[in-house]
Amino acid sequence: MKVLVINCGSSSIKYELFDMAQESVLASGLVERIGSDRSILTHKVTGKEPWVETAEILDHRQGLNKVLALLVDKTLGVLHSVDEVDAVGHRVVHGGEAFSQSALINTDVVRAIQANVDLAPLHNPPNLLGIDAARHHLPHAQHAAVFDTAFHQTMPDYAYLYALPRVLYQKHKVRRYGFHGTSHQYVSERAAEMLEKPLEELKLISCHIGNGASCTAIQGGKSVDTSMGMTPLEGLMMGTRSGDIDPAIVPFIMAKEELTLAEVNSMMNKHSGLIGVSGLSSDMREIVEGTFEGNKQAKLALEMYTYRLRKTIGAYAAAMDGVDAIIFTAGVGENASLVREWTCRGLSYLGVELDKEKNANRGLQVISTPESRVKVLVIPTDEELMIARETKRLVESAS
Amino acid sequence: MKVLVINCGSSSIKYELFDMAQESVLASGLVERIGSDRSILTHKVTGKEPWVETAEILDHRQGLNKVLALLVDKTLGVLHSVDEVDAVGHRVVHGGEAFSQSALINTDVVRAIQANVDLAPLHNPPNLLGIDAARHHLPHAQHAAVFDTAFHQTMPDYAYLYALPRVLYQKHKVRRYGFHGTSHQYVSERAAEMLEKPLEELKLISCHIGNGASCTAIQGGKSVDTSMGMTPLEGLMMGTRSGDIDPAIVPFIMAKEELTLAEVNSMMNKHSGLIGVSGLSSDMREIVEGTFEGNKQAKLALEMYTYRLRKTIGAYAAAMDGVDAIIFTAGVGENASLVREWTCRGLSYLGVELDKEKNANRGLQVISTPESRVKVLVIPTDEELMIARETKRLVESAS
Repeated sequence: MKVLVINCGSSSIKYELFDMAQESVLASGLVERIGSDRSILTHKVTGKEPWVETAEILDHRQGLNKVLALLVDKTLGVLHSVDEVDAVGHRVVHGGEAFSQSALINTDVVRAIQANVDLAPLHNPPNLLGIDAARHHLPHAQHAAVFDTAFHQTMPDYAYLYALPRVLYQKHKVRRYGFHGTSHQYVSERAAEMLEKPLEELKLISCHIGNGASCTAIQGGKSVDTSMGMTPLEGLMMGTRSGDIDPAIVPFIMAKEELTLAEVNSMMNKHSGLIGVSGLSSDMREIVEGTFEGNKQAKLALEMYTYRLRKTIGAYAAAMDGVDAIIFTAGVGENASLVREWTCRGLSYLGVELDKEKNANRGLQVISTPESRVKVLVIPTDEELMIARETKRLVESAS
Repeated sequence: MKVLVINCGSSSIKYELFDMAQESVLASGLVERIGSDRSILTHKVTGKEPWVETAEILDHRQGLNKVLALLVDKTLGVLHSVDEVDAVGHRVVHGGEAFSQSALINTDVVRAIQANVDLAPLHNPPNLLGIDAARHHLPHAQHAAVFDTAFHQTMPDYAYLYALPRVLYQKHKVRRYGFHGTSHQYVSERAAEMLEKPLEELKLISCHIGNGASCTAIQGGKSVDTSMGMTPLEGLMMGTRSGDIDPAIVPFIMAKEELTLAEVNSMMNKHSGLIGVSGLSSDMREIVEGTFEGNKQAKLALEMYTYRLRKTIGAYAAAMDGVDAIIFTAGVGENASLVREWTCRGLSYLGVELDKEKNANRGLQVISTPESRVKVLVIPTDEELMIARETKRLVESAS
């Protein structure tokens, strides 16, 4: 089965074509700056040099058409015909309470995704554009929606509700949803393999830390708590997002600086986190470099980032009455050994003992010592593969 | 030395007169509804029936005058003359960054308290009215300001800063201050006595849970982190306060419900927490009762309350790399055995083992089993005594 995975932003399409027989990537790429006459298309075929072209691409339908043309191109392509695409897996950010699992797309599913636009106004609309484009160009294929939120729908009510007037949940669906579910699920399954124990018996804490960052408590394979909330702003400190703050700061700052709702949202989402504290960069690589070079604000940002992550790990150990393994994944988690080291120092009370040599390595591995009571794992995430797997599973179980 | 402790609200004066030789309370009381022609004055002399009267009391000066008259009253009084009051200890909520300790009051100190009005607009102004009234009526006495925030000034920068644009700290002093400092300090000192260990060697987590609630990590006698933030809204779920929420919910709800800044503040501070979730009560006694009677919303509120407190304890164990003892204090902490039980269940990974029989008792005691690796203590707080002690200390060290 060949599965095309699509992840659409407001002006972008990210794609990856899998042959599910070997779970191998045949081709992948990115369309950027959709809506401009100088859109950029980058197309990679496994084993070949990347192809880059500039073109006028005015909407997502046109963008996907271009991608499909490349996939069947005589020199750049990997397919004879687009009919070979058996299924399309769509990443959809917000499934709200409607989706506790991935779903094959039909009119009802599209309507339910539309109903959650309010909860993810920046993400669900482009996700819907991608679905529209793919169904238009690939009407013969099965389409599946794989949600960032679905994995977290197993949280108990006392973990997902806020201590706000109940009417806000009833009327506006204000609750914790959580995000990065595909990634948290993927790494938790990989962790069970690495630990050679059934997932059902494990207490895991997975730290998906990239530009966005979230931490999830996974007990018996199920998300029982997660740090992102109704939106991806809550929880950990991130590249440009504040994470948790005293909620009273929002009206305080709005009054002091005469900010509109959009401005205060933008401040917390785009000008805070690593960049807000360091004044240097939202990129952890530059923060680590700055720290080594003696930049005090960079060091402070790194201390805050790791201290807050450590506290969240501690909180989730309390949520599950213990933890068997801590997982680091995504851009920062996979690559920033200093972040892992600083996060884990001070977790010896849990029985965490990092192996400094192993921690300096890259790629999939156990970075705790053999004696460490709690294992620490680095697991490169693969959300696209997880979406492709989910899509395959849905298609097969429907047929 | 006789020390009068004063705690002023916008329409109230709470007072307690100590003889510091034995740290005994000579008299205490409360003036309520100041500014009305039916103000209520309740005066208690140790060992006698309380005295209650209704009178017109238009401002704090008049209120305190009334209190002083009672203190020297032939039948209701405990002093021959107000000149016997050697010192007055004033509770002041917000000392900002200016006060890392209590301070004898002079013009500079008053000015510094005024400078923090922005950070505590509901609390510092009445505290200043109390200072004015007491200095007016007791000009011979020494006056000391004891701050709710001072104990927490030992927090490291990575714990007290938010991941917001740095300019907000520089320009508006947006940072974590923490509150209930007097109480957290008092119970931590008592805990060291009970554990018969030097405070300097202990890692303590104190849970001051009353109407307001905060949790503090105390390492070596110093506050290293605390759950309340720039304002007393942040952190734990409380009687009427939400505690932590996704900060993006604030602008979301303001837009959806067309709320003003004052309205959203009021929603989070006065209509959330136990009352918001349960719809029943902000009083933990009624929540516990409701839970026993099968009220599902009450049970949910209790689960959220204790789950969040447990996670905070877990976070602070991570902040200090372990914990020696957990302290419960204030109205809920001292009296609600079910809250303590639910909070501690799921902390066995830390080595917490509650003694259910002892937990059912009231008053100062160790409620963990002798085998429990982490001790659990109930310690009735006494902020007034702590303020009196601080005042005595300042007066003696100044003379």
